[in-house]
Amino acid sequence: MQSNYYTISEYPTGTPSQDVFKLKQQDLPALADGEVRIRNRWLSVDPYMRGRMSGVTTYIEPFELEAPLEGAAVGEVIESGDDRFKVGDKVSHMGGWRDVAQLPADGVTALPDLDVPEQAYLGVLGMPGMTAWTGLNAIAEMQQGDNVLVSAASGAVGSLAVQLAKAKGGVVVGLAGSQKKRDWLESQGVIAVDYRDKDAATLSEDLAKACPDGFDVYYENVGGVCLEAALNNLRVGARIAVCGMISRYNDEGPAPGPANLAMILIRRARMQGFIVFEHWDNYPAFLKDVGPKVAAGEIDYQETVREGLEATPEAFLDLFKGANTGKMLVRLG
Amino acid sequence: MQSNYYTISEYPTGTPSQDVFKLKQQDLPALADGEVRIRNRWLSVDPYMRGRMSGVTTYIEPFELEAPLEGAAVGEVIESGDDRFKVGDKVSHMGGWRDVAQLPADGVTALPDLDVPEQAYLGVLGMPGMTAWTGLNAIAEMQQGDNVLVSAASGAVGSLAVQLAKAKGGVVVGLAGSQKKRDWLESQGVIAVDYRDKDAATLSEDLAKACPDGFDVYYENVGGVCLEAALNNLRVGARIAVCGMISRYNDEGPAPGPANLAMILIRRARMQGFIVFEHWDNYPAFLKDVGPKVAAGEIDYQETVREGLEATPEAFLDLFKGANTGKMLVRLG
Repeated sequence: MQSNYYTISEYPTGTPSQDVFKLKQQDLPALADGEVRIRNRWLSVDPYMRGRMSGVTTYIEPFELEAPLEGAAVGEVIESGDDRFKVGDKVSHMGGWRDVAQLPADGVTALPDLDVPEQAYLGVLGMPGMTAWTGLNAIAEMQQGDNVLVSAASGAVGSLAVQLAKAKGGVVVGLAGSQKKRDWLESQGVIAVDYRDKDAATLSEDLAKACPDGFDVYYENVGGVCLEAALNNLRVGARIAVCGMISRYNDEGPAPGPANLAMILIRRARMQGFIVFEHWDNYPAFLKDVGPKVAAGEIDYQETVREGLEATPEAFLDLFKGANTGKMLVRLG
Repeated sequence: MQSNYYTISEYPTGTPSQDVFKLKQQDLPALADGEVRIRNRWLSVDPYMRGRMSGVTTYIEPFELEAPLEGAAVGEVIESGDDRFKVGDKVSHMGGWRDVAQLPADGVTALPDLDVPEQAYLGVLGMPGMTAWTGLNAIAEMQQGDNVLVSAASGAVGSLAVQLAKAKGGVVVGLAGSQKKRDWLESQGVIAVDYRDKDAATLSEDLAKACPDGFDVYYENVGGVCLEAALNNLRVGARIAVCGMISRYNDEGPAPGPANLAMILIRRARMQGFIVFEHWDNYPAFLKDVGPKVAAGEIDYQETVREGLEATPEAFLDLFKGANTGKMLVRLG
């Protein structure tokens, strides 16, 4: 059987162009004991993947050149060499960026028994949802009534973060760059603030108007002016969960950091970076907390869906243009 | 009785010049019930005082213009209107920058009964020592064997921080700007690194050579290139205690922050600001831990002593030139 997959031949610098991604084919070898073969239905593209497209190990290993790229995917078992899986099982795994994946069964997970669409396990109940939940709870230790600021607030992670924060009762402000995204935020009871083309001073003032008492928690997905403006609007004892700094992922050289980092001292604030993969032990607790809310329709999760394997590179690159509302997904036929 | 004191008539911008400080005299009113009158023997000057010389409330109230400046001091009670104190008692209090202080007894503390010189309560057993201990233990949660980096490592706070860190067994590196300071650090088993006139890249390399495995804890007193170089040399899960950013205290405008703040994410590090005055409940625990070590001569604390009340402004300003080794003190005749 043939598998069609995307790979890269070299590590791009700066913003990758689409021709970095090469579509290739391979004939899969016969299934070995302990392996399963999966026809993928949904592929995930996520900003963190940019970090794997460099020759440098940051917090995760680089992608191997010429090998199939990796990423979260959901599909159906079409052949099984392992007792734990049978043909027809719905599963999630990391063999994305391809139509047919052949993997050791140890890296494959059966989808939980919840009444939700299968692609939810790539978004609201997958890595992005788990990232939002971990950042707010384990890292920022959000308390009932806390005022919370979220950057990239309509993205896959941010859109769940604002809803989980809102459920705890404080003022929730979301930063988003388009009117459509801000409309969605306002529909959730979130105060939406535009950050596009603003300097840090202007954005600081806008945040102060949106939440005059300041923020107890800042959920940081962006960096740059968003971070600088947030630092100017912290309450004493604030916690910043640093989940990503997407504004910097394609930078070719270092850019200056916030000029007001001393606010960490002045506000006795705490800023902490985290990688969700290191908190995966908490996934069952997350699923127990958030899964029933999703099944009951209490969480409004957005998806931006692209069609067909060949749409994957553009879907990925569009993440850095803010083209997605909610989770960016690729659906395979 | 007359009191001679220093005051300021306006809030300076940038690096203050010496003529900002005005020496004035007042005739003290008769002692009221509940007050004590103290002849000061030792005055403390500390970098945090710069923050009080601006019209802006940061984490502490500004000094009142034309009123006596405040700061830690040690002296002897010469008249008492409160049962808790009698003439001849040795006390510490916040009525510094003057020769005779008249204060409510509630703000006056009898010196503990330890066999140490009285000025130790302004340094190794006072606010600076408590700051070092709090930053390492309560904020950075230093563990046995941790590798620790300390900036301003021969200062009043840093010189105790390196010794407390060294006692826990890991590699300890101290940043200091003069050969004399580095010699003292090396005499304590601390690896001394010069930071003067280096850019962040060069200093990063020097730190990597000094401690190839990276740092679990960074005790931050300085900001600027020291912070940027430290961020490049963190271990996964590192903790940064932000005690001060002395390199910025005299800045007239904002300066760019570190270009590599994303290391917080890459190393899953935590950076936390603190103000020692908010942790003063722990002072008895600090005194119990560190006091006997000082009395036994196990802590090598340095002092830079200036003579006479009129030396106070220059002593304060010299803190920002790095002219002190250990605690900067003014002795009154």
